[in-house]
Amino acid sequence: MVITLSSEHNPMETNVIEVYAFATPNSVKVPIVLEELGLPYELKAVNVRKGEQKEDAFLSLNPNGKVPVLVDDGFVLTESAAILVHLAEKTGKLLPSDGEARARVFEQLFFHASALSPAFGNAGFFMRSSPAPQPIAEARFAKEAERILGILDRKLAGQSFMADDAFTIADIAHFGWLWRRQFPGLTLDERPNLSRWYETVAARPAVQRAIARVEALAEAPTSVA
Amino acid sequence: MVITLSSEHNPMETNVIEVYAFATPNSVKVPIVLEELGLPYELKAVNVRKGEQKEDAFLSLNPNGKVPVLVDDGFVLTESAAILVHLAEKTGKLLPSDGEARARVFEQLFFHASALSPAFGNAGFFMRSSPAPQPIAEARFAKEAERILGILDRKLAGQSFMADDAFTIADIAHFGWLWRRQFPGLTLDERPNLSRWYETVAARPAVQRAIARVEALAEAPTSVA
Ligand SMILES: N[C@@H](CCC(=O)N[C@@H](CS)C(=O)NCC(=O)O)C(=O)O
Ligand SMILES: N[C@@H](CCC(=O)N[C@@H](CS)C(=O)NCC(=O)O)C(=O)O
Repeated sequence: MVITLSSEHNPMETNVIEVYAFATPNSVKVPIVLEELGLPYELKAVNVRKGEQKEDAFLSLNPNGKVPVLVDDGFVLTESAAILVHLAEKTGKLLPSDGEARARVFEQLFFHASALSPAFGNAGFFMRSSPAPQPIAEARFAKEAERILGILDRKLAGQSFMADDAFTIADIAHFGWLWRRQFPGLTLDERPNLSRWYETVAARPAVQRAIARVEALAEAPTSVA
Repeated sequence: MVITLSSEHNPMETNVIEVYAFATPNSVKVPIVLEELGLPYELKAVNVRKGEQKEDAFLSLNPNGKVPVLVDDGFVLTESAAILVHLAEKTGKLLPSDGEARARVFEQLFFHASALSPAFGNAGFFMRSSPAPQPIAEARFAKEAERILGILDRKLAGQSFMADDAFTIADIAHFGWLWRRQFPGLTLDERPNLSRWYETVAARPAVQRAIARVEALAEAPTSVA
Protein backbone atom coordinates (compact mmCIF):
# COMPACT_ATOMS: atom_id res chain seq x y z
CA MET A 1 0.00 0.00 0.00
CA VAL A 2 1.73 3.10 -1.27
CA ILE A 3 0.90 6.79 -1.50
CA THR A 4 3.00 8.30 -4.24
CA LEU A 5 3.67 11.89 -3.32
CA SER A 6 4.08 14.26 -6.26
CA SER A 7 3.78 11.32 -8.61
CA GLU A 8 2.68 13.55 -11.41
CA HIS A 9 5.28 16.23 -10.83
CA ASN A 10 5.41 18.51 -13.80
CA PRO A 11 8.83 20.13 -14.28
CA MET A 12 7.14 23.19 -15.82
CA GLU A 13 5.42 23.96 -12.54
CA THR A 14 7.31 25.50 -9.66
CA ASN A 15 4.92 24.20 -7.03
CA VAL A 16 2.89 20.99 -6.96
CA ILE A 17 -0.10 21.04 -4.64
CA GLU A 18 -1.93 17.82 -3.82
CA VAL A 19 -5.06 17.58 -1.69
CA TYR A 20 -6.26 14.33 -0.15
CA ALA A 21 -9.97 14.79 0.26
CA PHE A 22 -13.50 13.51 -0.19
CA ALA A 23 -16.93 15.12 -0.57
CA THR A 24 -17.00 16.14 3.11
CA PRO A 25 -17.54 19.36 5.08
CA ASN A 26 -13.91 19.77 6.10
CA SER A 27 -12.43 18.61 2.78
CA VAL A 28 -14.31 21.05 0.58
CA LYS A 29 -12.70 24.06 2.24
CA VAL A 30 -9.32 23.31 0.68
CA PRO A 31 -10.41 23.15 -2.99
CA ILE A 32 -12.45 26.29 -2.34
CA VAL A 33 -9.46 28.29 -1.12
CA LEU A 34 -7.28 26.96 -3.94
CA GLU A 35 -9.88 27.90 -6.55
CA GLU A 36 -10.30 31.34 -4.96
CA LEU A 37 -6.52 31.84 -5.04
CA GLY A 38 -6.20 30.52 -8.60
CA LEU A 39 -3.63 27.89 -7.58
CA PRO A 40 -3.60 24.63 -9.57
CA TYR A 41 -3.92 21.44 -7.53
CA GLU A 42 -4.47 17.74 -7.86
CA LEU A 43 -7.28 16.17 -5.84
CA LYS A 44 -6.71 12.65 -4.49
CA ALA A 45 -9.76 10.71 -3.36
CA VAL A 46 -9.74 9.14 0.10
CA ASN A 47 -13.04 7.30 0.39
CA VAL A 48 -14.00 7.83 4.03
CA ARG A 49 -17.18 5.79 3.52
CA LYS A 50 -14.95 2.77 2.86
CA GLY A 51 -12.59 3.62 5.76
CA GLU A 52 -9.58 4.45 3.59
CA GLN A 53 -8.61 7.19 6.05
CA LYS A 54 -7.72 4.47 8.58
CA GLU A 55 -5.39 2.56 6.25
CA ASP A 56 -1.68 2.60 7.06
CA ALA A 57 -0.70 4.45 3.89
CA PHE A 58 -3.00 7.34 4.77
CA LEU A 59 -2.18 7.29 8.50
CA SER A 60 1.47 7.88 7.57
CA LEU A 61 0.32 11.19 6.04
CA ASN A 62 -2.11 12.05 8.86
CA PRO A 63 -1.85 10.04 12.10
CA ASN A 64 -5.24 11.54 13.03
CA GLY A 65 -6.83 9.56 10.16
CA LYS A 66 -8.88 12.40 8.70
CA VAL A 67 -9.22 14.36 5.50
CA PRO A 68 -8.26 16.89 4.25
CA VAL A 69 -4.47 16.70 3.95
CA LEU A 70 -2.46 19.18 1.90
CA VAL A 71 0.86 18.22 0.31
CA ASP A 72 2.50 21.44 -0.81
CA ASP A 73 5.70 20.58 -2.68
CA GLY A 74 6.27 17.68 -0.29
CA PHE A 75 5.28 19.56 2.89
CA VAL A 76 2.44 17.60 4.50
CA LEU A 77 -0.10 19.64 6.47
CA THR A 78 -3.31 18.51 8.20
CA GLU A 79 -6.26 20.39 9.75
CA SER A 80 -8.42 22.22 7.23
CA ALA A 81 -8.19 25.59 8.97
CA ALA A 82 -4.39 25.37 9.31
CA ILE A 83 -4.31 24.68 5.56
CA LEU A 84 -6.47 27.79 4.93
CA VAL A 85 -4.10 29.93 7.01
CA HIS A 86 -1.00 28.48 5.31
CA LEU A 87 -2.32 29.15 1.79
CA ALA A 88 -3.67 32.60 2.66
CA GLU A 89 -0.35 33.66 4.18
CA LYS A 90 1.63 32.19 1.28
CA THR A 91 -0.32 34.30 -1.21
CA GLY A 92 -1.15 37.33 0.93
CA LYS A 93 -4.86 36.95 0.18
CA LEU A 94 -8.16 36.24 2.00
CA LEU A 95 -6.64 37.09 5.41
CA PRO A 96 -5.95 40.70 6.44
CA SER A 97 -2.27 41.15 7.27
CA ASP A 98 -2.79 42.86 10.63
CA GLY A 99 -5.03 44.67 13.04
CA GLU A 100 -8.48 43.95 14.32
CA ALA A 101 -9.71 42.61 10.96
CA ARG A 102 -7.06 39.88 11.12
CA ALA A 103 -7.96 38.92 14.71
CA ARG A 104 -11.64 38.66 13.71
CA VAL A 105 -10.75 36.05 11.07
CA PHE A 106 -8.93 33.91 13.63
CA GLU A 107 -11.82 34.34 16.08
CA GLN A 108 -14.19 32.85 13.51
CA LEU A 109 -11.78 30.10 12.44
CA PHE A 110 -11.54 28.94 16.06
CA PHE A 111 -15.25 29.39 16.72
CA HIS A 112 -15.87 27.18 13.70
CA ALA A 113 -13.32 24.54 14.75
CA SER A 114 -14.26 24.36 18.42
CA ALA A 115 -18.01 25.06 18.36
CA LEU A 116 -19.79 24.68 15.02
CA SER A 117 -17.83 21.75 13.61
CA PRO A 118 -18.10 19.40 16.64
CA ALA A 119 -21.74 20.38 17.28
CA PHE A 120 -22.75 19.64 13.68
CA GLY A 121 -20.71 16.43 13.53
CA ASN A 122 -22.05 15.09 16.82
CA ALA A 123 -25.63 16.17 16.09
CA GLY A 124 -25.47 14.20 12.85
CA PHE A 125 -23.88 11.18 14.52
CA PHE A 126 -26.51 10.88 17.26
CA MET A 127 -29.35 11.53 14.82
CA ARG A 128 -28.21 9.01 12.19
CA SER A 129 -25.32 6.76 13.17
CA SER A 130 -25.51 5.89 16.86
CA PRO A 131 -25.95 2.11 17.33
CA ALA A 132 -28.80 2.84 19.78
CA PRO A 133 -30.74 6.02 20.61
CA GLN A 134 -29.06 8.41 23.05
CA PRO A 135 -31.79 11.01 23.46
CA ILE A 136 -29.95 13.30 25.86
CA ALA A 137 -26.87 13.35 23.65
CA GLU A 138 -28.94 13.86 20.50
CA ALA A 139 -30.83 16.78 22.06
CA ARG A 140 -27.66 18.30 23.49
CA PHE A 141 -25.90 18.56 20.14
CA ALA A 142 -29.00 19.53 18.15
CA LYS A 143 -29.65 22.36 20.60
CA GLU A 144 -26.02 23.47 20.51
CA ALA A 145 -26.03 23.48 16.69
CA GLU A 146 -29.18 25.66 16.67
CA ARG A 147 -27.64 27.98 19.26
CA ILE A 148 -24.60 28.43 17.01
CA LEU A 149 -26.77 29.12 13.94
CA GLY A 150 -28.48 31.82 15.98
CA ILE A 151 -25.18 33.44 16.95
CA LEU A 152 -24.03 33.54 13.33
CA ASP A 153 -27.37 34.79 12.05
CA ARG A 154 -27.33 37.69 14.53
CA LYS A 155 -23.70 38.50 13.64
CA LEU A 156 -24.59 38.64 9.93
CA ALA A 157 -27.40 41.11 10.62
CA GLY A 158 -24.71 43.78 10.93
CA GLN A 159 -22.03 42.70 8.46
CA SER A 160 -21.74 41.04 5.04
CA PHE A 161 -19.27 38.28 5.88
CA MET A 162 -18.19 36.27 8.91
CA ALA A 163 -15.26 38.52 9.81
CA ASP A 164 -16.52 42.00 9.05
CA ASP A 165 -17.31 43.07 5.48
CA ALA A 166 -14.77 41.28 3.30
CA PHE A 167 -14.80 37.67 2.09
CA THR A 168 -12.02 35.78 3.93
CA ILE A 169 -10.96 32.27 4.88
CA ALA A 170 -13.39 32.58 7.82
CA ASP A 171 -16.25 32.35 5.29
CA ILE A 172 -14.64 29.34 3.63
CA ALA A 173 -14.30 27.57 6.99
CA HIS A 174 -17.94 28.11 7.96
CA PHE A 175 -19.17 27.23 4.47
CA GLY A 176 -17.98 23.60 4.65
CA TRP A 177 -20.41 22.49 7.35
CA LEU A 178 -23.22 24.82 6.28
CA TRP A 179 -23.05 23.20 2.83
CA ARG A 180 -23.47 19.81 4.58
CA ARG A 181 -26.15 20.97 7.07
CA GLN A 182 -28.53 18.19 6.06
CA PHE A 183 -26.36 15.61 7.84
CA PRO A 184 -27.24 17.09 11.27
CA GLY A 185 -30.77 17.82 10.00
CA LEU A 186 -30.47 21.60 10.07
CA THR A 187 -32.01 24.25 7.83
CA LEU A 188 -31.44 27.97 7.34
CA ASP A 189 -35.19 28.63 6.94
CA GLU A 190 -35.51 30.82 10.03
CA ARG A 191 -32.09 32.44 9.57
CA PRO A 192 -32.48 35.24 7.02
CA ASN A 193 -29.01 36.72 7.40
CA LEU A 194 -27.24 33.40 7.34
CA SER A 195 -29.32 32.36 4.30
CA ARG A 196 -28.31 35.52 2.46
CA TRP A 197 -24.65 34.89 3.34
CA TYR A 198 -24.91 31.24 2.26
CA GLU A 199 -26.39 32.11 -1.12
CA THR A 200 -23.74 34.77 -1.70
CA VAL A 201 -20.87 32.37 -0.96
CA ALA A 202 -22.43 29.44 -2.83
CA ALA A 203 -22.79 31.63 -5.94
CA ARG A 204 -19.07 32.38 -6.19
CA PRO A 205 -17.64 30.68 -9.28
CA ALA A 206 -14.62 29.37 -7.34
CA VAL A 207 -16.91 27.77 -4.76
CA GLN A 208 -18.97 26.12 -7.49
CA ARG A 209 -15.88 24.73 -9.21
CA ALA A 210 -14.57 23.32 -5.93
CA ILE A 211 -17.88 21.66 -5.08
CA ALA A 212 -18.06 20.06 -8.53
CA ARG A 213 -14.56 18.69 -8.10
CA VAL A 214 -15.10 17.18 -4.63
CA GLU A 215 -18.46 15.73 -5.61
CA ALA A 216 -16.75 13.93 -8.50
CA LEU A 217 -14.41 12.27 -5.98
CA ALA A 218 -17.09 9.87 -4.82
CA GLU A 219 -16.87 8.34 -8.31
CA ALA A 220 -13.09 8.56 -8.66
CA PRO A 221 -10.66 5.65 -8.27
CA THR A 222 -9.02 5.56 -4.85
CA SER A 223 -5.67 7.24 -4.17
CA VAL A 224 -4.94 5.07 -1.15
CA ALA A 225 -4.22 1.70 -2.72
CA MET B 1 -25.65 45.00 35.52
CA VAL B 2 -22.56 46.71 34.17
CA ILE B 3 -19.17 45.65 32.91
CA THR B 4 -16.79 48.57 33.20
CA LEU B 5 -14.19 48.25 30.49
CA SER B 6 -10.79 49.68 31.34
CA SER B 7 -12.22 50.95 34.61
CA GLU B 8 -8.80 51.05 36.19
CA HIS B 9 -7.08 52.65 33.24
CA ASN B 10 -3.70 53.88 34.34
CA PRO B 11 -2.41 56.83 32.31
CA MET B 12 1.17 55.63 32.90
CA GLU B 13 0.49 52.47 30.92
CA THR B 14 0.25 52.55 27.14
CA ASN B 15 -1.85 49.43 26.93
CA VAL B 16 -4.45 48.06 29.33
CA ILE B 17 -5.17 44.35 29.00
CA GLU B 18 -8.14 42.80 30.75
CA VAL B 19 -8.98 39.11 30.78
CA TYR B 20 -12.42 37.79 31.71
CA ALA B 21 -11.77 34.27 32.93
CA PHE B 22 -12.28 31.58 35.54
CA ALA B 23 -10.28 28.55 36.70
CA THR B 24 -11.13 26.62 33.50
CA PRO B 25 -9.16 24.79 30.78
CA ASN B 26 -9.72 27.44 28.12
CA SER B 27 -9.35 30.43 30.44
CA VAL B 28 -5.95 29.48 31.83
CA LYS B 29 -4.29 29.70 28.41
CA VAL B 30 -4.62 33.51 28.34
CA PRO B 31 -2.90 34.30 31.67
CA ILE B 32 -0.20 31.77 30.69
CA VAL B 33 0.60 33.54 27.42
CA LEU B 34 0.51 36.95 29.12
CA GLU B 35 2.88 35.78 31.87
CA GLU B 36 5.19 34.20 29.27
CA LEU B 37 5.22 37.47 27.32
CA GLY B 38 5.71 39.59 30.43
CA LEU B 39 2.62 41.71 29.67
CA PRO B 40 0.71 43.12 32.65
CA TYR B 41 -2.98 42.30 32.78
CA GLU B 42 -6.00 42.50 35.01
CA LEU B 43 -8.02 39.32 35.58
CA LYS B 44 -11.78 39.65 35.95
CA ALA B 45 -13.66 36.71 37.45
CA VAL B 46 -16.67 35.31 35.58
CA ASN B 47 -18.01 32.55 37.79
CA VAL B 48 -19.15 29.93 35.28
CA ARG B 49 -20.33 27.67 38.12
CA LYS B 50 -22.91 30.34 38.97
CA GLY B 51 -23.80 30.94 35.29
CA GLU B 52 -22.42 34.47 35.11
CA GLN B 53 -21.30 33.79 31.50
CA LYS B 54 -24.99 33.75 30.48
CA GLU B 55 -25.82 37.14 32.01
CA ASP B 56 -26.60 39.99 29.63
CA ALA B 57 -23.61 42.08 30.65
CA PHE B 58 -21.24 39.28 29.74
CA LEU B 59 -23.14 38.25 26.59
CA SER B 60 -22.61 41.78 25.30
CA LEU B 61 -18.87 41.06 25.43
CA ASN B 62 -19.16 37.50 24.08
CA PRO B 63 -22.47 36.46 22.49
CA ASN B 64 -21.20 32.87 22.69
CA GLY B 65 -21.39 33.09 26.50
CA LYS B 66 -17.97 31.62 27.25
CA VAL B 67 -14.70 32.55 28.88
CA PRO B 68 -12.02 33.64 28.18
CA VAL B 69 -12.50 37.10 26.69
CA LEU B 70 -9.60 39.49 26.11
CA VAL B 71 -10.08 43.25 26.17
CA ASP B 72 -6.93 44.79 24.72
CA ASP B 73 -7.17 48.57 25.00
CA GLY B 74 -10.89 48.36 24.31
CA PHE B 75 -10.65 45.74 21.52
CA VAL B 76 -12.79 42.77 22.60
CA LEU B 77 -11.63 39.35 21.38
CA THR B 78 -13.06 35.89 22.13
CA GLU B 79 -11.80 32.33 21.48
CA SER B 80 -8.77 31.37 23.53
CA ALA B 81 -6.66 30.31 20.55
CA ALA B 82 -7.46 33.49 18.61
CA ILE B 83 -6.30 35.40 21.69
CA LEU B 84 -3.04 33.41 21.74
CA VAL B 85 -2.43 34.21 18.06
CA HIS B 86 -3.26 37.91 18.55
CA LEU B 87 -0.86 38.30 21.49
CA ALA B 88 1.91 36.25 19.86
CA GLU B 89 1.74 38.29 16.66
CA LYS B 90 1.58 41.57 18.58
CA THR B 91 4.82 40.75 20.38
CA GLY B 92 6.55 38.60 17.74
CA LYS B 93 7.03 35.78 20.25
CA LEU B 94 5.94 32.14 20.77
CA LEU B 95 4.88 31.75 17.11
CA PRO B 96 7.46 31.41 14.31
CA SER B 97 7.05 34.17 11.75
CA ASP B 98 7.01 31.90 8.70
CA GLY B 99 7.70 28.57 7.09
CA GLU B 100 6.87 25.05 8.12
CA ALA B 101 7.44 25.74 11.82
CA ARG B 102 4.66 28.34 11.73
CA ALA B 103 2.24 26.00 9.93
CA ARG B 104 2.93 23.30 12.54
CA VAL B 105 1.78 25.67 15.30
CA PHE B 106 -1.52 26.35 13.54
CA GLU B 107 -1.97 22.63 12.86
CA GLN B 108 -1.76 21.95 16.60
CA LEU B 109 -3.94 24.94 17.54
CA PHE B 110 -6.70 23.61 15.28
CA PHE B 111 -6.17 19.99 16.33
CA HIS B 112 -6.61 21.18 19.90
CA ALA B 113 -9.69 23.27 19.14
CA SER B 114 -11.49 20.74 16.94
CA ALA B 115 -10.42 17.41 18.42
CA LEU B 116 -8.95 17.47 21.93
CA SER B 117 -11.08 20.23 23.43
CA PRO B 118 -14.54 18.89 22.40
CA ALA B 119 -13.54 15.29 23.18
CA PHE B 120 -12.37 16.19 26.70
CA GLY B 121 -15.35 18.48 27.33
CA ASN B 122 -17.92 15.95 26.16
CA ALA B 123 -16.20 13.00 27.88
CA GLY B 124 -16.40 14.94 31.14
CA PHE B 125 -20.01 15.95 30.56
CA PHE B 126 -21.27 12.41 29.90
CA MET B 127 -19.21 10.98 32.74
CA ARG B 128 -20.29 13.53 35.35
CA SER B 129 -23.05 15.90 34.32
CA SER B 130 -25.56 14.15 32.07
CA PRO B 131 -29.03 14.04 33.68
CA ALA B 132 -29.20 10.30 32.85
CA PRO B 133 -26.59 7.79 31.67
CA GLN B 134 -25.85 7.80 27.93
CA PRO B 135 -23.46 4.87 27.68
CA ILE B 136 -22.79 5.06 23.95
CA ALA B 137 -22.08 8.77 24.14
CA GLU B 138 -19.92 8.36 27.24
CA ALA B 139 -17.87 5.59 25.59
CA ARG B 140 -17.59 7.49 22.31
CA PHE B 141 -15.99 10.56 23.86
CA ALA B 142 -13.84 8.66 26.36
CA LYS B 143 -12.44 6.55 23.51
CA GLU B 144 -11.87 9.61 21.35
CA ALA B 145 -10.06 11.39 24.20
CA GLU B 146 -7.76 8.36 24.69
CA ARG B 147 -7.13 8.18 20.94
CA ILE B 148 -6.04 11.83 20.98
CA LEU B 149 -3.74 11.28 23.96
CA GLY B 150 -2.14 8.45 21.97
CA ILE B 151 -1.57 10.67 18.93
CA LEU B 152 0.07 13.36 21.06
CA ASP B 153 2.18 10.86 23.01
CA ARG B 154 3.54 9.36 19.77
CA LYS B 155 4.22 12.84 18.38
CA LEU B 156 6.19 13.77 21.47
CA ALA B 157 8.37 10.66 21.14
CA GLY B 158 10.23 12.50 18.39
CA GLN B 159 10.15 16.13 19.46
CA SER B 160 10.27 18.22 22.66
CA PHE B 161 7.19 20.35 22.16
CA MET B 162 3.87 20.14 20.33
CA ALA B 163 5.05 21.98 17.23
CA ASP B 164 8.62 20.77 16.76
CA ASP B 165 11.32 21.60 19.30
CA ALA B 166 10.48 25.07 20.59
CA PHE B 167 7.90 26.11 23.17
CA THR B 168 5.07 27.94 21.37
CA ILE B 169 1.43 28.90 21.81
CA ALA B 170 0.59 25.35 20.62
CA ASP B 171 1.91 24.07 23.95
CA ILE B 172 -0.12 26.66 25.84
CA ALA B 173 -3.29 25.62 23.99
CA HIS B 174 -2.85 21.91 24.73
CA PHE B 175 -1.82 22.60 28.34
CA GLY B 176 -5.22 24.04 29.32
CA TRP B 177 -7.18 20.80 29.00
CA LEU B 178 -4.29 18.53 30.02
CA TRP B 179 -4.10 20.51 33.25
CA ARG B 180 -7.83 19.79 33.75
CA ARG B 181 -7.69 16.12 32.63
CA GLN B 182 -9.35 14.89 35.81
CA PHE B 183 -12.70 16.30 34.65
CA PRO B 184 -12.93 13.72 31.81
CA GLY B 185 -11.28 11.13 34.08
CA LEU B 186 -8.04 10.86 32.10
CA THR B 187 -4.50 10.21 33.27
CA LEU B 188 -1.08 10.44 31.63
CA ASP B 189 0.13 7.27 33.40
CA GLU B 190 0.61 5.24 30.21
CA ARG B 191 1.84 8.22 28.18
CA PRO B 192 5.55 8.68 28.97
CA ASN B 193 6.24 11.35 26.35
CA LEU B 194 3.16 13.38 27.11
CA SER B 195 3.93 13.11 30.85
CA ARG B 196 7.44 14.41 30.28
CA TRP B 197 6.05 17.30 28.18
CA TYR B 198 3.39 18.08 30.81
CA GLU B 199 5.95 18.25 33.65
CA THR B 200 8.22 20.47 31.56
CA VAL B 201 5.44 22.93 30.78
CA ALA B 202 3.94 22.85 34.30
CA ALA B 203 7.37 23.69 35.76
CA ARG B 204 7.70 26.96 33.83
CA PRO B 205 7.51 29.90 36.26
CA ALA B 206 5.10 31.80 34.00
CA VAL B 207 2.75 28.82 33.90
CA GLN B 208 2.85 28.51 37.69
CA ARG B 209 2.09 32.20 38.16
CA ALA B 210 -0.86 32.00 35.74
CA ILE B 211 -2.32 28.94 37.46
CA ALA B 212 -2.07 30.60 40.86
CA ARG B 213 -3.88 33.66 39.54
CA VAL B 214 -6.78 31.76 37.90
CA GLU B 215 -7.18 29.49 40.91
CA ALA B 216 -7.58 32.57 43.08
CA LEU B 217 -10.50 33.68 40.88
CA ALA B 218 -12.82 31.11 42.40
CA GLU B 219 -12.54 33.15 45.61
CA ALA B 220 -12.61 36.58 43.99
CA PRO B 221 -15.62 38.91 43.94
CA THR B 222 -17.52 38.75 40.65
CA SER B 223 -16.78 41.14 37.77
CA VAL B 224 -20.19 40.64 36.21
CA ALA B 225 -22.45 42.36 38.67
N1 LIG C 1 -10.45 19.26 12.41
C1 LIG C 1 -10.26 18.48 11.21
C2 LIG C 1 -11.42 17.52 11.06
C3 LIG C 1 -11.32 16.66 9.84
C4 LIG C 1 -12.49 15.67 9.76
O1 LIG C 1 -13.24 15.49 10.72
N2 LIG C 1 -12.60 15.02 8.60
C5 LIG C 1 -13.65 14.05 8.38
C6 LIG C 1 -14.37 14.35 7.09
S1 LIG C 1 -15.14 15.96 7.16
C7 LIG C 1 -13.05 12.67 8.31
O2 LIG C 1 -11.99 12.46 7.73
N3 LIG C 1 -13.74 11.71 8.91
C8 LIG C 1 -13.38 10.33 8.87
C9 LIG C 1 -13.05 9.80 10.23
O3 LIG C 1 -13.08 10.55 11.22
O4 LIG C 1 -12.77 8.61 10.32
C10 LIG C 1 -10.15 19.39 10.00
O5 LIG C 1 -10.77 20.47 10.04
O6 LIG C 1 -9.44 19.06 9.05
N1 LIG D 1 -13.54 27.59 22.03
C1 LIG D 1 -13.71 28.42 23.19
C2 LIG D 1 -14.31 27.61 24.29
C3 LIG D 1 -14.52 28.38 25.55
C4 LIG D 1 -15.19 27.54 26.61
O1 LIG D 1 -15.72 26.44 26.34
N2 LIG D 1 -15.22 28.08 27.86
C5 LIG D 1 -15.83 27.37 28.95
C6 LIG D 1 -14.87 27.30 30.12
S1 LIG D 1 -13.41 26.40 29.69
C7 LIG D 1 -17.06 28.13 29.37
O2 LIG D 1 -17.10 29.34 29.41
N3 LIG D 1 -18.12 27.37 29.72
C8 LIG D 1 -19.32 27.91 30.19
C9 LIG D 1 -20.49 27.62 29.29
O3 LIG D 1 -20.29 27.03 28.22
O4 LIG D 1 -21.61 27.98 29.68
C10 LIG D 1 -12.33 28.97 23.60
O5 LIG D 1 -11.34 28.27 23.36
O6 LIG D 1 -12.26 30.08 24.12
